[in-house]
Parts: sequence; C-alpha cells; structure tokens
Amino acid sequence: MTTRIADLPTPCVLISRRILESNLQAMAERCRSLGVRLRPHIKTHNLPEIAQRQLHAGAGGVTVATPQEAALAARHGVRDIFVAREVADRVDLCALLDVARSVHLITAVDSVAGAEALAEVAAAREMPMAVRLEVDTGGQRCGVATLEALTALARRVLALPALRLEGIFTHEGHVYGAADHQDLIRQATAAVQALGAMGAGLRAAGVPCGEVSVGSSPSAKTATDFRGVTEVRPGNYVFNDGMQVANGTARIEDCALSVVATVISRPAPDRAVLNVGSKLLGSDRGKNASDTGGYGLVLEPERQVLTRLYEEHGVIDAATGLRVGQRVRLLPTHACIVANLARTVALVDDRGGVVEVWSNRRYA
Amino acid sequence: MTTRIADLPTPCVLISRRILESNLQAMAERCRSLGVRLRPHIKTHNLPEIAQRQLHAGAGGVTVATPQEAALAARHGVRDIFVAREVADRVDLCALLDVARSVHLITAVDSVAGAEALAEVAAAREMPMAVRLEVDTGGQRCGVATLEALTALARRVLALPALRLEGIFTHEGHVYGAADHQDLIRQATAAVQALGAMGAGLRAAGVPCGEVSVGSSPSAKTATDFRGVTEVRPGNYVFNDGMQVANGTARIEDCALSVVATVISRPAPDRAVLNVGSKLLGSDRGKNASDTGGYGLVLEPERQVLTRLYEEHGVIDAATGLRVGQRVRLLPTHACIVANLARTVALVDDRGGVVEVWSNRRYA
Repeated sequence: MTTRIADLPTPCVLISRRILESNLQAMAERCRSLGVRLRPHIKTHNLPEIAQRQLHAGAGGVTVATPQEAALAARHGVRDIFVAREVADRVDLCALLDVARSVHLITAVDSVAGAEALAEVAAAREMPMAVRLEVDTGGQRCGVATLEALTALARRVLALPALRLEGIFTHEGHVYGAADHQDLIRQATAAVQALGAMGAGLRAAGVPCGEVSVGSSPSAKTATDFRGVTEVRPGNYVFNDGMQVANGTARIEDCALSVVATVISRPAPDRAVLNVGSKLLGSDRGKNASDTGGYGLVLEPERQVLTRLYEEHGVIDAATGLRVGQRVRLLPTHACIVANLARTVALVDDRGGVVEVWSNRRYA
Repeated sequence: MTTRIADLPTPCVLISRRILESNLQAMAERCRSLGVRLRPHIKTHNLPEIAQRQLHAGAGGVTVATPQEAALAARHGVRDIFVAREVADRVDLCALLDVARSVHLITAVDSVAGAEALAEVAAAREMPMAVRLEVDTGGQRCGVATLEALTALARRVLALPALRLEGIFTHEGHVYGAADHQDLIRQATAAVQALGAMGAGLRAAGVPCGEVSVGSSPSAKTATDFRGVTEVRPGNYVFNDGMQVANGTARIEDCALSVVATVISRPAPDRAVLNVGSKLLGSDRGKNASDTGGYGLVLEPERQVLTRLYEEHGVIDAATGLRVGQRVRLLPTHACIVANLARTVALVDDRGGVVEVWSNRRYA
C-alpha cells in the first residue's frame, strides 16, 4: 500500500518530484546555453539521491562546504568534489586529505598561511592537492579582493610543489542583500564580471588559472554576462524557497520543498499556532529584496505569514480560517536550513502519494 | 590513550563536566529551598546522559516539546515525561499515545477542540491520558489567558472520561525579552504569581488542579515569589549561554557548553573568519536584556564578538590578534540550538582531556 502524505506525522518535509526534476532540467539547460560547467553546491540538500540526479542531469562534479560534507558525498559515490571553504587546522586538514584518497578533491585557499598549512600536510602524505583561490567580489567574507593580492597568492601556491593551482572562485552571496530584483541582476552581473576579469588578469600576468567559478542560484539565473567564467555552483535552485520568491528569481510554483504542519492552538481570535518552529524551519528571514516578511508562508489552505517563531512553535498573528487539528502546507523562507534540520524528507507526487523517503545522513 | 580536545576536528562542541555538575547541583538546591519539584526541560540537550544526571540530582521527571522527543527519552529509560506542547493531528496523537504505553506521559491542552481530539484517540485505545492545561502568562503564544476560560476548559476536560486533569502550566519565555535584569526579575515574578493565582482560582471554583508548573531558567533562578507553584521546568540552566550571561542570570564561568573553531581566513586587517556558522551555532541573538550583541562570543584567546554568521562561516569584523590556523573557544548565544545541531558533544575535564563523547540521538 502506498504511503500518503496524510499518513506522515507533522511537521514533515515534502519534496515535489515534478518540481524538483523541472528545476534540475532548467538549470542544466541554462548552463548549456551559457556555455559554463555546472558544479552544484549540495549543502542545499546533502542527499545522495539528489546529488545523483544532479550528476545525471549534466553536472560534472559537486560543491560542498566542509570536509564532513565531502566525506559524506564520497561515501555515496560522488567522485569529483570541491570544498568551497578554507580549511586551516591540522586535524581538519587530515580529515580533508582522508577524503582525497578516494576522489578528485579540490579545496579552497585564500591566504599564504593557509596554502602553506595545506602544503605541509599534503607533502607529508605525498598527496598533491588541487586548490582554487577564493576571490572576494563584494561579500566581504573570505577571499582576496585585488588582482595584485590574487597574483601574489597564485605565485606562492605555484611555488609549493604539494599544491596544484586548479582555478579561482567566488561566492557572490551578497546578491541576496540587493535592494530589489533589478539591483540583484546588476550586482550578480557585476560579481560575475569581476571574477571573469580576475581570471583574465591572472592569465595576463602569466598564471594559467584554470577554472573560473562563480556560485549562487540568483546569479546563475539572472547575471547577463558570463564572459571569462567557466563554471557555476548554484545550490538552492533544486528546491527554491521564500527568499528566491521574494527576490524574484523563482515563483511559488517553482518551489519543490514544503513543510506540512498542524494548527495546535487558536488561543485568540487573530492568533494561530503551528507545531513547527526554528528547529525545523531555521530563523532566517532574508534581507532587503530577499526578505519574505516572515519565517515561512502558509500556502494552503490560504496565504498567511508566520510572524513569530520559537523552537517548536510557529505563530501567525493575523490568522484567518484555521482550526485546531487542521494541517497546513507552508513554504520555508530558507530551504537549505530545513533540509539540514529535517530527519527525513518525503519525495511526493502530485496526487498526495509518498514516492520515497530519504534520510538525512548528516548523522550517519 | 586519552583523547585530547586538541585531537578533535573543528568546529566541535565541548561540555565542561565540572560546570555541568555544578549547574545541576545549584538548580536542585534552589528547587529544594523553594519547595518546588524540578522537572527539567530536556530539549536543551536531548542527551540521555544528561537526563540521567538530572534525575539523579533530584528531578522527578522531565519535560519535552514533541512526541518524538518523548519517544527518545522513553527509549533511554525516562519514566515520567511531560510533553509541554499541544498535539492536535490524529497521526501525531497516535505517535504520542504509542509513547504513553510504556511511561507516565502527560500532555498539554489549551482548547476544547484539542481536548476532544485527544480524548477521541485515547478513548479508542482505552488509554486514559493525563493532561495539563496551558495558561498564557504574557508570552502570547499558546494557552488560555483568563481564569474564566481556564475554568471552562477544565470543566470540559473533567467531563471527558478519557482524560485526567493533572495540572496547569505556563511557559513564561517572554521574560527573555525583558528590558534589563531588574525588569526580568519583575516579569518572572509576575508570571509565576499569575500562574499561582490561576491555580488558586481554579481550586476556588471547585476544580482540583494538581500541579501548578512554571518553566524557564531565568525565572526559576530569579523569581521572588513561588507561592501556589508546585513545579519548575527550567531547561537551559544545565549549560547556560550568551543570552543568560547577557540578561544577568549566569556568569561566563557558569557556562558549561562552548564551541572550538578555527580561524580559516584573515582577508582584511580587521576581519577574521571562523569555520563555524549557523549550521552549528544557530542564528539566535536574543533581544533586549538577552541580546548578546552578536552570534557568539570568542572567549579565548581574547574576547571578540561574532558579528556576521553564514551557514558555515562566522565573521569577526573588528578582529584583533588572530592568525590563520589558530583555534578559538567561543560561547554560543543559544546553547539549546547548538546541542540540537551538533552531531556529537564532548564531555571534557579542566585539563583538556575528553572524558566521554555523546552522540545526538535525534536521528537515531
């Protein structure tokens, strides 16, 4: 007998098979039309089942954020993995190199000290490591900000026999803070162009820099000039979420991940309380163009905003038409956080059937 | 050979055995001196190892938030469990009653509709359920707000043979939003007194209400009048955290849980980036008196505030004295979230040794 969504305890996380597949195809086609390789960031789901679908749809490899995520992907058969965050501690570097034994692993470097620490561990193991240099294109997080600094770092890396310079990359996540959709397109295009220019500058200085890689779903979808860029690393596009809807890079009907919760209390005429809180939804709200106005949007039975969130409670302060015991379906503000927090997610069809249940392997 | 903290990969979560035990003893003594029973909320840790220590220190039972947490506690030998959140969906009610087969389980009710849904499932299984009625003492979340409404609900519950009225309770979590420490004491005392008065009012109306239970670490520590209250349900006190330090109900040296992270980047003279973000620390900041001013406080090598947090990055925007590769120890803003997100936590002694490693069973 088929399990139905109605049989699942709440809160539960659903993934629409139809929308997921449509999102995978759309991004694969977009990359083909742009002439760039696709290396999706799988921190959005950390599910081997989706990683395999992404590889099948044309991705050449995947992106992860941590040595632990790399190990998880490698255990599940992914063979080409980019860890897009610097690793600097000796214990963590050893964990990273353990993964590199069995797969093609690339890691991130943005400082001479970081490069030397990695090179020391790699040399001791006689295991040369592929690295990409991180460039800051406006996020003011990690990464070198000038061509001069980038060139100097590249030269230092080239001088370390244990390292192989494999490319440069940026994460232009600051586009989520754009003022509006037009500003997002402008910022995304500027960041992509800035990295392309860095690649050209490096080559002009005599450094063969390899891949030139940008990452973020909004910019992969909207940037208007990818000259000089060879790869994109969008993550969220597989699901989309409230932030993507708010900033205009997805419609509600493009959102594959939703949460079913139950109304557990109607303590006042205008207040409804759901049995879902930050321990499943996270507390991200986005900002500026990406601000959803709340912590989640009830889609059914009618549109309502989660205005307050506690660990296990979600409050709608201007509630209408909900009764205790009723199930609601809601769109999370930030899908990556939900997939990380959910114990399981259910792949569902359009008729209310559960096709598969996937387990979060973060703890495996 | 003993594992050392220095051998653990970063980021990792440490619990000081000495401070944990001291916190357990202090709360147990406080409850004895107040003449109230202690039923700690174990969502703070969800670790059987700590629940057992709490029971050993004098707790009569535990509090959880969800049927899943109740099942986890029951699987690990806890025999008296209060689920302090309403359950209303039929599938969820069945999950709850499955737990009640093997332990003394009490659940929360704040509406006639909720009581009737529970009674229907309990009657069908011929398994009478113990319930407590939730009172809103200022949090504006769940709970009835007036004695009139409480009395009416209690009478309806008494008329349902499948339910046993076991008490009333409140969660006065709104005290975390107090303006300052004095205001927190004032609000905590007011909430505790309000529930005590509700209990007295119910009895005056001829309803024997049983336990009168308040919950929150700040109020258990600071409220000055517990007349009419029979039980407290603090959670966070086992660890304490940045919010408790900010609102004056704990000192930094009372905080048992800390996180060790590594500096992975120094991209600008005043900016340092750590390899820890919201996927371990959460993004809570507290508000008003409980606002820590950031997303975590670096304790060693020197005090610095995490000003920006991404999923896997933490940024210090006015950094001093940190170098790439250096380990730092930091105090999280909200310890409950960290314990929920961590895959494992290490119980440590004062000499840098790891005594035990406990696994998060949320996914087991």
